[in-house]
Amino acid sequence: MHVFGVDIGGTTVKIGRFTEDGNIKNKWEIPTRKENDGELILQDIADSIHREMGINDIGASEVIGIGIGVPGPVLENGVVNGCVNLGWKQKDVTTEMQELMHGIPAYVGNDANVAALGEYWKGGGKGFNNVIMVTLGTGVGAGIILQGKILAGTNGAGGEIGHFHVNDEETELCGCGKAGCLEQYASATGVVRMANKVLNTTDKSVLKDLSNLSCKDVFDAAKEGDPAAASVVEQLGKTLGTALAHVSATVDPEVFVIGGGVSKAGQIVIDVVQKYYKKYAFHATENAEFKLAVLSNDAGMYGAVKMAIDGNAK
Amino acid sequence: MHVFGVDIGGTTVKIGRFTEDGNIKNKWEIPTRKENDGELILQDIADSIHREMGINDIGASEVIGIGIGVPGPVLENGVVNGCVNLGWKQKDVTTEMQELMHGIPAYVGNDANVAALGEYWKGGGKGFNNVIMVTLGTGVGAGIILQGKILAGTNGAGGEIGHFHVNDEETELCGCGKAGCLEQYASATGVVRMANKVLNTTDKSVLKDLSNLSCKDVFDAAKEGDPAAASVVEQLGKTLGTALAHVSATVDPEVFVIGGGVSKAGQIVIDVVQKYYKKYAFHATENAEFKLAVLSNDAGMYGAVKMAIDGNAK
Repeated sequence: MHVFGVDIGGTTVKIGRFTEDGNIKNKWEIPTRKENDGELILQDIADSIHREMGINDIGASEVIGIGIGVPGPVLENGVVNGCVNLGWKQKDVTTEMQELMHGIPAYVGNDANVAALGEYWKGGGKGFNNVIMVTLGTGVGAGIILQGKILAGTNGAGGEIGHFHVNDEETELCGCGKAGCLEQYASATGVVRMANKVLNTTDKSVLKDLSNLSCKDVFDAAKEGDPAAASVVEQLGKTLGTALAHVSATVDPEVFVIGGGVSKAGQIVIDVVQKYYKKYAFHATENAEFKLAVLSNDAGMYGAVKMAIDGNAK
Repeated sequence: MHVFGVDIGGTTVKIGRFTEDGNIKNKWEIPTRKENDGELILQDIADSIHREMGINDIGASEVIGIGIGVPGPVLENGVVNGCVNLGWKQKDVTTEMQELMHGIPAYVGNDANVAALGEYWKGGGKGFNNVIMVTLGTGVGAGIILQGKILAGTNGAGGEIGHFHVNDEETELCGCGKAGCLEQYASATGVVRMANKVLNTTDKSVLKDLSNLSCKDVFDAAKEGDPAAASVVEQLGKTLGTALAHVSATVDPEVFVIGGGVSKAGQIVIDVVQKYYKKYAFHATENAEFKLAVLSNDAGMYGAVKMAIDGNAK
């Protein structure tokens, strides 16, 4: 039997064909055509999957289902509640895809939640039941898996931890329109922002010589002992470690899996976050584990496949 | 059919006999005998329920089950993981109670979680699926109900929001051993503590004339416009409102139900907490509702009954 995992991004759609026990047989990408409010996206995906089925002589009865991760909130009935990056307003992606695929079942989830399900199933959270996947990229987001199921939330805002208010003194605005959000400190963008602020107050930093400062530059300098860079890494660790302590005192997970661009700096990220986490966590939750994500950009496809398998088993 | 709801406290055990649709037929209390590591507590409860069954000519086959709330963490298999107030170490309360009741099914949960289930079923959270019950008493705790089910957490620490770290500057220790916990500001004890601090810095407050200041005194004075008292209420609102914004950006509930002694001050508590909540919440969660709890000390019994009914339906 076959399962398709689809991860719709703003630029490309990642598609994978998997066996039902999660082995990947083929993966490829197609462009995300956003013109006309993204009306072509689902048809393009269906065409691409039909082509893969034709090439490999796979009949519809041999496909368990299609899981789809989308970059926007998804209501509990599988309807996407608007997706700015794709041009979608409210859209019943589940029903539309099933019709395009002539009845093959489709299952739809938010991309951060679906990626968390992927890391839970086959990645850094493998072997655990209660997993928080934290993605530190352009922004900060989390996907929450409890007892193996996605916690989506009433408004699809479960795991939106990037917008924890963590600093009353902040004067710059977050993308959400408020000020002092976690992602202003713990995202890749936030790290560069903080570094530029620190560099305005010191002459002593190897970062001074760099143009177009990147998050990687800051972590590289911190690893070399640069004090300005190290102070930025500490600030990331403190804001994120405290926030994750709050997450633990709310949902009490077994493990945090840290992914996204910032996590490519490696163990230094885990170490500084866990240092502050242990300092501020409620004692019963102090020993939650911290792991690096392992599936990278494929997490969404894996999670989409798992979602389809679970949905089919209901 | 009958269901028994049991709420074990440090001083008394509340017991209620209910119909399966949640109508209370009788309620009573027995003392909590804590001697010898609390070894008599379960036997006392079983004797008391047997007596009620005998008086009312109720056979074992007419009892759906017994739900029990205990003041300590409960593992997912129904084992109580230590209960300091009762003298219990790890104890299989589920199995022991079933044996004492000759096979009538027993279901065990943490008391804060069980009370949340009660408010969800028959109280301030009635009609909602995703409910956070926040209890502002000697400490601060929460019970989280998602899709009608208790979120217990890996270590039974789900909803332990009283130990959110909210203040780096705090020098006094919380009961948990760390400093700057939410419950140092948002509990009844915390309100009195903050008031005493403020009173050391001002001569102008009606609270100055009171000995043995209580949380009620502070709220009464705030309602009369006393500036010192009002500043304490604002501080409670800000710490709790921010914390609940974090809870929303994690589990995204429909409603917060506020109970416990502090909530007896009424709408003023809702108003000040909601003011800061809206200021700091992620926009998708800004419109979560706030309601006062309605079941008071009976919430635990109601929730225990609901837990037994749900357990029986599985």
